[in-house]
Amino acid sequence: MKTRIGIVGFRGYSGAELIRLLERHPGVESVLLEHRQDSGDPPQPLSAKPHARIPSTPQAVKAEGIALVFLATPADVSMELTPGMLNAGAKVIDLSGAFRLREPEVYSRWYRETHTAPELLSEAVYGLPEFCRDGIAGARLISNPGCYPTAANLALQPLVAAGVIDRACGIVCDAKSGVSGAGRKPSLKTSFCEVTENFSAYSVLDHRHVPEILMVSGIEEAELSFTAQLLPIHRGILETIYFRARGITSAQELLNIYTRRYAKEPFVRLYQPGTLPDISGVERTNFCDIGVRLDAASGRAVVVSVIDNLVKGAAGQAVQNMNLALGFEETEGLL
Amino acid sequence: MKTRIGIVGFRGYSGAELIRLLERHPGVESVLLEHRQDSGDPPQPLSAKPHARIPSTPQAVKAEGIALVFLATPADVSMELTPGMLNAGAKVIDLSGAFRLREPEVYSRWYRETHTAPELLSEAVYGLPEFCRDGIAGARLISNPGCYPTAANLALQPLVAAGVIDRACGIVCDAKSGVSGAGRKPSLKTSFCEVTENFSAYSVLDHRHVPEILMVSGIEEAELSFTAQLLPIHRGILETIYFRARGITSAQELLNIYTRRYAKEPFVRLYQPGTLPDISGVERTNFCDIGVRLDAASGRAVVVSVIDNLVKGAAGQAVQNMNLALGFEETEGLL
Amino acid sequence: MKTRIGIVGFRGYSGAELIRLLERHPGVESVLLEHRQDSGDPPQPLSAKPHARIPSTPQAVKAEGIALVFLATPADVSMELTPGMLNAGAKVIDLSGAFRLREPEVYSRWYRETHTAPELLSEAVYGLPEFCRDGIAGARLISNPGCYPTAANLALQPLVAAGVIDRACGIVCDAKSGVSGAGRKPSLKTSFCEVTENFSAYSVLDHRHVPEILMVSGIEEAELSFTAQLLPIHRGILETIYFRARGITSAQELLNIYTRRYAKEPFVRLYQPGTLPDISGVERTNFCDIGVRLDAASGRAVVVSVIDNLVKGAAGQAVQNMNLALGFEETEGLL
Amino acid sequence: MKTRIGIVGFRGYSGAELIRLLERHPGVESVLLEHRQDSGDPPQPLSAKPHARIPSTPQAVKAEGIALVFLATPADVSMELTPGMLNAGAKVIDLSGAFRLREPEVYSRWYRETHTAPELLSEAVYGLPEFCRDGIAGARLISNPGCYPTAANLALQPLVAAGVIDRACGIVCDAKSGVSGAGRKPSLKTSFCEVTENFSAYSVLDHRHVPEILMVSGIEEAELSFTAQLLPIHRGILETIYFRARGITSAQELLNIYTRRYAKEPFVRLYQPGTLPDISGVERTNFCDIGVRLDAASGRAVVVSVIDNLVKGAAGQAVQNMNLALGFEETEGLL
Repeated sequence: MKTRIGIVGFRGYSGAELIRLLERHPGVESVLLEHRQDSGDPPQPLSAKPHARIPSTPQAVKAEGIALVFLATPADVSMELTPGMLNAGAKVIDLSGAFRLREPEVYSRWYRETHTAPELLSEAVYGLPEFCRDGIAGARLISNPGCYPTAANLALQPLVAAGVIDRACGIVCDAKSGVSGAGRKPSLKTSFCEVTENFSAYSVLDHRHVPEILMVSGIEEAELSFTAQLLPIHRGILETIYFRARGITSAQELLNIYTRRYAKEPFVRLYQPGTLPDISGVERTNFCDIGVRLDAASGRAVVVSVIDNLVKGAAGQAVQNMNLALGFEETEGLL
Repeated sequence: MKTRIGIVGFRGYSGAELIRLLERHPGVESVLLEHRQDSGDPPQPLSAKPHARIPSTPQAVKAEGIALVFLATPADVSMELTPGMLNAGAKVIDLSGAFRLREPEVYSRWYRETHTAPELLSEAVYGLPEFCRDGIAGARLISNPGCYPTAANLALQPLVAAGVIDRACGIVCDAKSGVSGAGRKPSLKTSFCEVTENFSAYSVLDHRHVPEILMVSGIEEAELSFTAQLLPIHRGILETIYFRARGITSAQELLNIYTRRYAKEPFVRLYQPGTLPDISGVERTNFCDIGVRLDAASGRAVVVSVIDNLVKGAAGQAVQNMNLALGFEETEGLL
Repeated sequence: MKTRIGIVGFRGYSGAELIRLLERHPGVESVLLEHRQDSGDPPQPLSAKPHARIPSTPQAVKAEGIALVFLATPADVSMELTPGMLNAGAKVIDLSGAFRLREPEVYSRWYRETHTAPELLSEAVYGLPEFCRDGIAGARLISNPGCYPTAANLALQPLVAAGVIDRACGIVCDAKSGVSGAGRKPSLKTSFCEVTENFSAYSVLDHRHVPEILMVSGIEEAELSFTAQLLPIHRGILETIYFRARGITSAQELLNIYTRRYAKEPFVRLYQPGTLPDISGVERTNFCDIGVRLDAASGRAVVVSVIDNLVKGAAGQAVQNMNLALGFEETEGLL
Repeated sequence: MKTRIGIVGFRGYSGAELIRLLERHPGVESVLLEHRQDSGDPPQPLSAKPHARIPSTPQAVKAEGIALVFLATPADVSMELTPGMLNAGAKVIDLSGAFRLREPEVYSRWYRETHTAPELLSEAVYGLPEFCRDGIAGARLISNPGCYPTAANLALQPLVAAGVIDRACGIVCDAKSGVSGAGRKPSLKTSFCEVTENFSAYSVLDHRHVPEILMVSGIEEAELSFTAQLLPIHRGILETIYFRARGITSAQELLNIYTRRYAKEPFVRLYQPGTLPDISGVERTNFCDIGVRLDAASGRAVVVSVIDNLVKGAAGQAVQNMNLALGFEETEGLL
């Protein structure tokens, strides 16, 4: 019998991606949880088989035997719904930023609003499996990482840990994202005519994903220059990361650090020096692809890290976390 | 009577842009110079008035009284044609990389081919009007700057000259360009299906435009990390430039350096701190738009510089140079 | 001294295009008329010279000596503002559908709302210069044509008038438009992620532009199958028109009908049989380009008609009408 | 043990799609057959497991026990390779136009070249499973349908068979395709800068897919006006089909014809009157989605038919045919 999984926010881009991924998963069945602001559905073929729909209330979640709920909702909705879902006995994987940071003050600074469920912050486990696998398996509340931090931390953390970055010179993370990262709610900034044939920086040094990068990678805010920019594409993130290497004499040495760290990781792929990954190579996959370039004489180093923001950057990583939390094979439904 | 201007390479994107710009210029008349590899023309409306066409030979250029020739051609063709055009008494504005660098050895290193007209390198004037206006006015041979260096040097040179960059920490120039920068010749890399919904880095640390940036801005190769990346748009360049500022306490101070330097420049526009330019704002214009962001406490600084690669990055700047070389108002046909 | 021209709705795509076109026009000066729903402005370079702004009231229009007002507004706003503007002594060119149809009942049927200024319908002149030039010159109120009808009527009317269409078999007009035709107001249907890599029919047989096509071309509703479809591009319309020709033995004969009709028209261009226009050929121009194809044996005929929806389909045609209404050269600012 | 399947032309878009689909198929294993013109491969992650590669010779095919070969090649290569592959005991599914038409003369007229393997034309089975399922199951040589004809015939044939089209008035099929339909070979027409922000008709009345539509749907050439147009998207086809209905009084009646015909078809989906399918709804699926619209009073009817040109229009349909030919479940690997 299949495990029942609830999805709140199923009409958004991450929610739709969750539905798509769970349809391929042999062990689970999706139930759509209607929340108040949800609007109408698009036309469907006559033969489409609709998913079960229930209210997004603790009572309904309990009555229907939902084992785990994905919250593909804005942070304020996640803070509102999470306590009830946990009380109803469901595990929660939250895709918003509500539970990613450890202190309510840090949340307030970067999200510019007061946290309304601070008592859950200490319990929430940060859902980056490559670094927190054990905690995820036993967690009630998993906070799915942000899209930009996922690509940044998988690239940065092993190098920071290995001590090969000259941090005094600073680290640049120049990040570019497809438009789906901004969500499905219509706005002028994501209108077709404003985006097509354009490219723009929309958040320089002050993006709310910065503290997640600091928290996981171990670097300091004053060391990191992070810029978020809008690509005229639907999905995908590419981050170009610059630093001065120290104690490194070849690109292959840099690559070896990653190879050792990620040898057994199913969703991190490395590129040979001389080649670099691009966005199309990870489209609709849960992979994070990483390539390196080094000028050994000067120490100038460049790392390119790419993901699909809706998969490894959102719904795919959420399913990976679900697999860990519910005891499925970690890659189930994702390869 | 209108001055006759020749265009070689008129079927390429820069060549087509030259035709478009010169049509608005009251003082000149375009003559198309056919070169050997040129292929057929696309369909035209019946009422289209074709431009005069002559061979791209010194004899024809002399006989037709061409005062100035634009070479919108690959570097090898430019090296081949330039001596003859100069001998025929025409001024030459070359849009390729053939005459931008001062030493043949530097050319060979970055362009990976031997320079076949090295005797002209010392005579050629680098055609960045904001920095070389006087030399351009009297030159026989003007070397039109590369697209990436134009955006980079206009942003970097004033700051380097003012000594506000902590060069020991390095400078990052993360550059993104529309596809027309790669020219009109069909290739897999510029095919629609390879580019749409994709984004990729294609030249990391070793782009042939790097030595132009070093030459004009005054920084050293070991200090600059330059990456060229391909945007899924037709035209436009955005460069995100990162450095550590020193002796600067606010974004306004950075901006003031630009304001002083560019107060009388018609084609450099500045943005107020808190706002940044984007590519759509310079589309089909000869402007370079610059905006700044600074975290004063840490010195982290970000400068965004945008141009249209086919205008300020190629044909527009070439017309600006033509205006200077032939004694027209510098902005004629460009506002 | 320049004639002062008012623009209501200047933040929309047609309004912005009007500003752009009038900047090139030597005889006029733009004044922006603020209307109630207008929102904030995007960032501008520090050197940008803002246009004069006044309220969109009859008093202000009169006091500021505005000779003509463009209404680049929704139909309900146009109906509200037009009487006051006319009373203030200004001519009005309305870019909405408010005054294009002759009877209030026809308006109500297609626009699904009651007309609130029906007394002006008989006075309004339909602003398609190729067919109504004389009326436009003397009009107080000019109704600028819809984008789809402009491309359709310029292609269809000469053929209908010449009697070469077998109308009993029907006429198909398969129309495709860029997204700017839907206006600048954010909506899910015009969001980048919904439009990119997609194509859809959004109005089949019941588009509100249909009665304009019938009114000008002279064909009957039951004879015309019109479909409006959304292209993933910013601007441009291409209509593929199908019919059975009668009494025609070659594509050249079809073309000759157009050639005779449009011999002196500055903004209609024709393509030789064997070649067809495309959208890029009219981008940012006021041209309507037309090409034909015929299978003489069966009479199957195809006409392709293209315009830029923001120029000949909106702001450019509006300026053409302004030129006629104010006595400027018809092509002023448009070539 | 898995059945071994060969793919010639695996670097093209259809070939790559075949690899992708066969990876999901539990019963088969892909072997890549190198053909002479094949060029180099793009960069791959270090962990990528390469497919087996052998020469595309009958000897190798026999020695390696290849049961079936997909030819994702141009028609001339397919004509060259097919006889040898059949002699080697492999079944062949050809994705080119080489074996779709029954008479060499018809082939010569539309493809403008002589057929070099006419002896195989009578044996080849047309691989449209919805109409030729039984023949496909027993065939040695299956000719995979063209992309445009697949969408057209699935929409047209049931209506023609039901006699509800007034054929004397003609049928219009206005077809739009993504760029991948033109193949991966670089050309100016499929270059990014020529396609983006553009739309053009490239084949009017004379497309080589026309005879396939006539052959399957049963209509006459003089009755069909078919236009092929290029959409600025990667993949997907939408065809808007117009005709006069007779003996029909509602859209529901039209829909009922389809419902009866396709009740048991796994890959044809129908839309309720009032709604229409779009390209994004079939992206990366093997579905053909069909919607209808009718003005009952005049008989004007519009049918919209959409497919993914690389799936139901090429590789997906080829896998569907392979499933039939080798005795797998027809939908295996495709849902």
